[in-house]
Amino acid sequence: MKKRLTVDMDGVLADVFQQFIINHERDFGQRKTLEEIAGLSEEEAFPKTREYVFTKGFFRNAPIIKDSQEILARLNEVYELFIVSAAMEFPNSLGEKQEWLNEHFSFIKWQQMVFCGSKTIIAADIMIDDHFKNLDHFHGVTYLFTQPHNKLTDPGRHTRVNSWQEIASLLL
Amino acid sequence: MKKRLTVDMDGVLADVFQQFIINHERDFGQRKTLEEIAGLSEEEAFPKTREYVFTKGFFRNAPIIKDSQEILARLNEVYELFIVSAAMEFPNSLGEKQEWLNEHFSFIKWQQMVFCGSKTIIAADIMIDDHFKNLDHFHGVTYLFTQPHNKLTDPGRHTRVNSWQEIASLLL
Repeated sequence: MKKRLTVDMDGVLADVFQQFIINHERDFGQRKTLEEIAGLSEEEAFPKTREYVFTKGFFRNAPIIKDSQEILARLNEVYELFIVSAAMEFPNSLGEKQEWLNEHFSFIKWQQMVFCGSKTIIAADIMIDDHFKNLDHFHGVTYLFTQPHNKLTDPGRHTRVNSWQEIASLLL
Repeated sequence: MKKRLTVDMDGVLADVFQQFIINHERDFGQRKTLEEIAGLSEEEAFPKTREYVFTKGFFRNAPIIKDSQEILARLNEVYELFIVSAAMEFPNSLGEKQEWLNEHFSFIKWQQMVFCGSKTIIAADIMIDDHFKNLDHFHGVTYLFTQPHNKLTDPGRHTRVNSWQEIASLLL
């Protein structure tokens, strides 16, 4: 029986930090580097975070995190895969996120998508996420995907992964 | 610690069968009774089911099932409540369903909403649903909410409930 694997969207598949950087540069004329925002929450790094995430197109046009398409396609063969995104906070994002997945990860069927508010309700064997608030409540094996906001924090009981190539070497 | 309760939307909170009846009468000039569609799937009862569920406004304008608002508000005090809807099949429905919940069940926070394709990934203690495909995979206590499509089927290991008043008498 295949193990059930849940994969987060924002900060794991969708490069929302790049979206923040692009939006911030447009508004403030300054391009923040990943180094200078390391350890900062999104709100600390980008003062207009809340405005950006409620803007039409923010999630629809997010860049794709390197290697995620190819490696997720391979994981989809080996695991019972679900994409689990905490999308409920941003009402506009629901349709955009589904369209984004359909375009960039067309091998993911609608049966494999979950949009929720809290991930405490998710039952699976393995979770890949960039937020401690999601991983800390999860009872299975946990992988912390490195993003600027979690870069300086001790991963604790979670295994830190810095790239999709690292995920491939651990899970394939 | 509060027990976790998951409640389905379509056919439990939202009266989608009434929506089908209204749409069918508009298209065919004939108002089907609940008795004549008992035991039929939605597709068997209403030939244009697939067209209706993909039509803008179908979910947004669904009537509310009797007593669900008042009793769900009380359950929300006693249980860790999640609304879990298999919304992913109908892309237009995501925003509509969230708006519908926000309007008619404003005490439900976004943290308590889950839109998924398959409910096999949901972990909870109690599930109320009108579909066997959701209840059969669930490991906790299961309540089958009576709807025309399941009315003639033996509920098996699930407890059949015919109204929200019955749910109140069992769970409150």
